[in-house]
Amino acid sequence: MTTIDLAGRIEHAVLSPQATEKDLQDAVRVAVRWGVRALVVKPCHLAAAARMLASSDVKLVTVIGFPHGGQTTETKVFETREAVARGAQEIDLVLNIGALRQRDLAAVFYEIRAVVEAAAGRPVKVILENAYLDDWPKRLAGRLAARAGASYVKTGTGFAPTGATVADVALMRRSVGGRLGVKAAGGIRSYADAVALVEAGADLIGTSHTEAILTEAARRAA
Amino acid sequence: MTTIDLAGRIEHAVLSPQATEKDLQDAVRVAVRWGVRALVVKPCHLAAAARMLASSDVKLVTVIGFPHGGQTTETKVFETREAVARGAQEIDLVLNIGALRQRDLAAVFYEIRAVVEAAAGRPVKVILENAYLDDWPKRLAGRLAARAGASYVKTGTGFAPTGATVADVALMRRSVGGRLGVKAAGGIRSYADAVALVEAGADLIGTSHTEAILTEAARRAA
Repeated sequence: MTTIDLAGRIEHAVLSPQATEKDLQDAVRVAVRWGVRALVVKPCHLAAAARMLASSDVKLVTVIGFPHGGQTTETKVFETREAVARGAQEIDLVLNIGALRQRDLAAVFYEIRAVVEAAAGRPVKVILENAYLDDWPKRLAGRLAARAGASYVKTGTGFAPTGATVADVALMRRSVGGRLGVKAAGGIRSYADAVALVEAGADLIGTSHTEAILTEAARRAA
Repeated sequence: MTTIDLAGRIEHAVLSPQATEKDLQDAVRVAVRWGVRALVVKPCHLAAAARMLASSDVKLVTVIGFPHGGQTTETKVFETREAVARGAQEIDLVLNIGALRQRDLAAVFYEIRAVVEAAAGRPVKVILENAYLDDWPKRLAGRLAARAGASYVKTGTGFAPTGATVADVALMRRSVGGRLGVKAAGGIRSYADAVALVEAGADLIGTSHTEAILTEAARRAA
């Protein structure tokens, strides 16, 4: 895969709980230098990130209900509206993991739909957090996300005990078919990791190891 | 320490991202059977927990901005107001860890104060998440929390790489003196852990290992 192709799939994440505005500045520089698809920031960094990215083509993405998804629907909707007002162009939403596991499908569906509406046309990615799920809720979440108007399903937050796997990406791709995109995220550290996940069906790669991944892509191209 | 003394200090937590309403029911039974001080639940479980605890003396506590603290102040305030409306009697707030690390003290102070106001008289515990902090921000956060009207400082969420330590509890106790309470939380699994933290200055113990801890306390008393 060429460096440009891969960069066009990468969403560079600066989501650590301890990340400061200095870390945000460093991440903006990486995102702009490599021309990645998007930068993913904490909600408290949205306003600053929107200013820093104003003259670039890098999309600004934030996370809602992050990383546990245990907020109420009302809080997630409020957080989404606020994110849109502060410049978020896409929304990565952690679904209610407990509700999905207890098969409270109405709650999961309604919440995704309410956030899609609050996002007012901006694409919503639904984070499943596969680390905590059997295969059946992974499949089910894909169908619920599609019906609720989401644009992508996403494997995880990067803060669970396990990260993105080739098996999960393939399962999610089969589950959503061509209706939704698939974003792999969590523990993606190398070029080989990223390529394997793209080959398994991932449209997008969420990672904070962008420099290492794209440096290796450029080295291989040279 | 007697079983009753220790139970009166324990806040039993059911905060795992994957926790279902069945897990909540189990936790309510543990909390009521052992007569602990409080039950700490995800915001999405507040309404159900309030019904389940209605005829008990166990206080109902929830977590705001949990567990990374990277939400905006506005979202944390909204989440707090909603939590109060759903029956929360105390609020455990994750402060903005990045803002504290970059010494943006006005932002940290204003956010705690805004949540204290939204809590409308209910005690607020400020979670520092010590795993990500040097000693100076731990001390500083105690002073900011006291000045902003919080009632306790709390060592961590239980979802960081490290948990509560005797050294941190002692440092926080020295920092806040008698002005605030200190709650130890994160990785507290045994009676010995709990007693060591109380002896170091913790007023409250946050744990999901309540049964193991209090069973051992009762065994020693017998």
